[in-house]
Amino acid sequence: MTDPVVIVGGDAAGLSAASKLSREDPEREVIVFERGRWVSYAHCGEPYFVKGEVDTLDDLLSLSPAEIDERGIDLRREHEVVGVDTDAGTVAVEGADGSFEQPYGDLVVATGARARTGPIPGSELTGAFTIHGLDSAAAVRALLTPPAGFSVDDLGGEGYVDREMVARYGAMEPPETAAIVGGGYVGVEMAEALDAWDVDVHLFQRSELPIPTFGEAVGETVADHLRERGVDLHLGAEVDELIGEDGSVAGVRCGDGSTLKAELAVVGVGVAPNVEIVEDTPVELGDSGAIAVDEYGETAVEGVYAAGDCAEDRHVVTDEPAWIPLGLTANRAGRAIGQTLAGTPTETGGIAGTAVVKAFDEECGRAGIVDGEEAREAGFDPVSRTVTAGSRSGYYPGNEETTVTLVADRESGRLIGGSIVGKDRAAVRIDTVATALEGGLTVAEVEGLDLAYAPPFSPVWDPVLVAAKVLGGALER
Amino acid sequence: MTDPVVIVGGDAAGLSAASKLSREDPEREVIVFERGRWVSYAHCGEPYFVKGEVDTLDDLLSLSPAEIDERGIDLRREHEVVGVDTDAGTVAVEGADGSFEQPYGDLVVATGARARTGPIPGSELTGAFTIHGLDSAAAVRALLTPPAGFSVDDLGGEGYVDREMVARYGAMEPPETAAIVGGGYVGVEMAEALDAWDVDVHLFQRSELPIPTFGEAVGETVADHLRERGVDLHLGAEVDELIGEDGSVAGVRCGDGSTLKAELAVVGVGVAPNVEIVEDTPVELGDSGAIAVDEYGETAVEGVYAAGDCAEDRHVVTDEPAWIPLGLTANRAGRAIGQTLAGTPTETGGIAGTAVVKAFDEECGRAGIVDGEEAREAGFDPVSRTVTAGSRSGYYPGNEETTVTLVADRESGRLIGGSIVGKDRAAVRIDTVATALEGGLTVAEVEGLDLAYAPPFSPVWDPVLVAAKVLGGALER
Repeated sequence: MTDPVVIVGGDAAGLSAASKLSREDPEREVIVFERGRWVSYAHCGEPYFVKGEVDTLDDLLSLSPAEIDERGIDLRREHEVVGVDTDAGTVAVEGADGSFEQPYGDLVVATGARARTGPIPGSELTGAFTIHGLDSAAAVRALLTPPAGFSVDDLGGEGYVDREMVARYGAMEPPETAAIVGGGYVGVEMAEALDAWDVDVHLFQRSELPIPTFGEAVGETVADHLRERGVDLHLGAEVDELIGEDGSVAGVRCGDGSTLKAELAVVGVGVAPNVEIVEDTPVELGDSGAIAVDEYGETAVEGVYAAGDCAEDRHVVTDEPAWIPLGLTANRAGRAIGQTLAGTPTETGGIAGTAVVKAFDEECGRAGIVDGEEAREAGFDPVSRTVTAGSRSGYYPGNEETTVTLVADRESGRLIGGSIVGKDRAAVRIDTVATALEGGLTVAEVEGLDLAYAPPFSPVWDPVLVAAKVLGGALER
Repeated sequence: MTDPVVIVGGDAAGLSAASKLSREDPEREVIVFERGRWVSYAHCGEPYFVKGEVDTLDDLLSLSPAEIDERGIDLRREHEVVGVDTDAGTVAVEGADGSFEQPYGDLVVATGARARTGPIPGSELTGAFTIHGLDSAAAVRALLTPPAGFSVDDLGGEGYVDREMVARYGAMEPPETAAIVGGGYVGVEMAEALDAWDVDVHLFQRSELPIPTFGEAVGETVADHLRERGVDLHLGAEVDELIGEDGSVAGVRCGDGSTLKAELAVVGVGVAPNVEIVEDTPVELGDSGAIAVDEYGETAVEGVYAAGDCAEDRHVVTDEPAWIPLGLTANRAGRAIGQTLAGTPTETGGIAGTAVVKAFDEECGRAGIVDGEEAREAGFDPVSRTVTAGSRSGYYPGNEETTVTLVADRESGRLIGGSIVGKDRAAVRIDTVATALEGGLTVAEVEGLDLAYAPPFSPVWDPVLVAAKVLGGALER
């Protein structure tokens, strides 16, 4: 009898693989080891749970353990895989029921990523959080809620949530001031979430603009808008440490020596792939530090796959491996590997680095290569133009300024990236750019796209078309 | 000296050509003949002007005659071109200043289309309108406004509007019942517009569903929604005639003999290209009855171009000529011809038949070939699937059902069309389909698109991706 498929990690990639495999090949035994209690949850929903727009933790669960069980998946929560022996075809597991070796027929590494706290001392203090996991999201909301009105039960997540820890935060007085360290998309989303409570929000960002991967035009618009909405924005400000007092956060200290009093600190300075379990194996890491895989998600070791935030993928613009950990990528790669293991070889698909983020009323999107330096490193000669156009016909109510940047390679005329920001359904328009990147369209072809026009939805010339017209003109020179 | 470029028609295509040419080659003389008074107006905005969401007629003007003059364009309003002599290189013009022959160096035919009233007698009655032109839009709004509160001046459009006619309608008592004949997009938009006033709205549609070019799934959703919003929908109902009483509309009579009393009738049963001026010339018409052109918009006669609602274009899916008169197409083709005439040959670009329409709260979109019969006629073996998915993460407020149909060719697996309907930013998502069609993507490639995901904007699997997954599964069989 074949050894079971072993999947390490019970979130988007791991459970997508397990679900697809168990549906396509119900006979094949599948075991999923998850070191935590939470499985299959919507990481991206955490800021909205903290904000209170999403009621309970249960709302963020895609699948309950019971549903997973119904699919015939043997899910072992609180079981940590601490080592892999690819020669023996076993994983070493530590669980409440002791340590054991589990043989596998095929192995799927879906260990995800963890929030980095970088070189910032104090991240272990009470009141300091990374927003990576539902327990910390629950704790932040508990802290923000005045103790008189707080009950752990109101947050849901029964059987998962760390009640004791969350209750402790629920008993504390809410902070007057919150410091967010890091102005990436988690930082920006958390600014909106915290602002919904009665707290002064300070956002510290090392570079000169927030969400730098979205490019300058988006960053500038978002910076202005965050300030408009009352967020104290500290740009070009490196946080050196979180200041502690009796084991709790009392403030932050910046590189220039300045300090700010704050009773809540959220650190969102990026994530790192969880690759430790394969480090002493022939499984290879890519330049990014994440696990290198082929077009089917298979690693350098036959029968060992990797998917999700711990693995690289092929970038559709450069055709090179890239590590851009995002939800759709994890779901899709997991699903493809499940299908491959069920006997139908299926490519995991490329990534375009498409990302969207809501910053209060501003919708932001990006796809492909937006940064000039990154473009040059990838061998392109980038030409970029930014335009601001209407989101609807000028005479139609609700028309809002929409700023689009498009980037092309000068020699080939090919579109290599773009970004967008605006208040009126700007974010989904980035899908036009993502689709054009997948299709390998030139700027002239983008300019010729027959995009939707009707006064309530779009002007005659969609903002993406306006940008393509201007960039096309620049390329002709 | 070269004879001037003569442009026949002063709307989207004609003035786009004139503007581009005068910008790129200011020395070249350009004369635009427009038989009416209105120029460069937003036809698509008329329903929203009738509704009252757009205040004045002036809001719908893209360019005033003064602005056109500033661009160095010699615009002659109320000058009708009644004939073309391609051998002599002249057009016959009739204007207030008499009849004359105008020699041309190059000729651009941008005569547009007119509303058909088909075989429906009574369309000339007082209270019967087509919504094709700002005078009729003004008249409908005047009729809907109670006389006590009406003033022609409030509607704007000074120097253009037919004041006498509009004032006459303004003095009438508003109708109690309105009949809309034709459930295409104009009919559906007018239902929303008329419903905003104190009037019972009846919509008569010959086929079994409204907006049939959007396919069944969209038609069904729109039919349900129109009824929900109080529109009396008469499907499979052919209107035989408008009943008159003392020269005014008093009702409609259907093919089955049934009648409905109505004091306002809007006839929107399609448009026909205005090609009469070239009918006795070597300029050729296509199978559609519109003017046949090459990729630069040039007709069978050298130096004679056609653009906009009177001309065909190349369809990106079939690579064959097609006649789909829409605003973006007209603007783009006109602009390209202007550029070509200025010395830089520029293709007018293909069309994907992308269209979007708002039906009260439902946003509808379509692109490519949606209809099975049309697909078979074009040589495809169509396979189609329809799915309903969320517009946002299920837990995020504002998530709405979004129904997507995708159509592919069985043999090649290529996407050939799609449609969408839903209440939450559904319309702009059709741009993903339009872009995929231009890129010639297969369904597998669409399924692999890295589309935007963030809880406020889209679920992990965008509705278009869900549809591609299901259609991809069907193609494998």
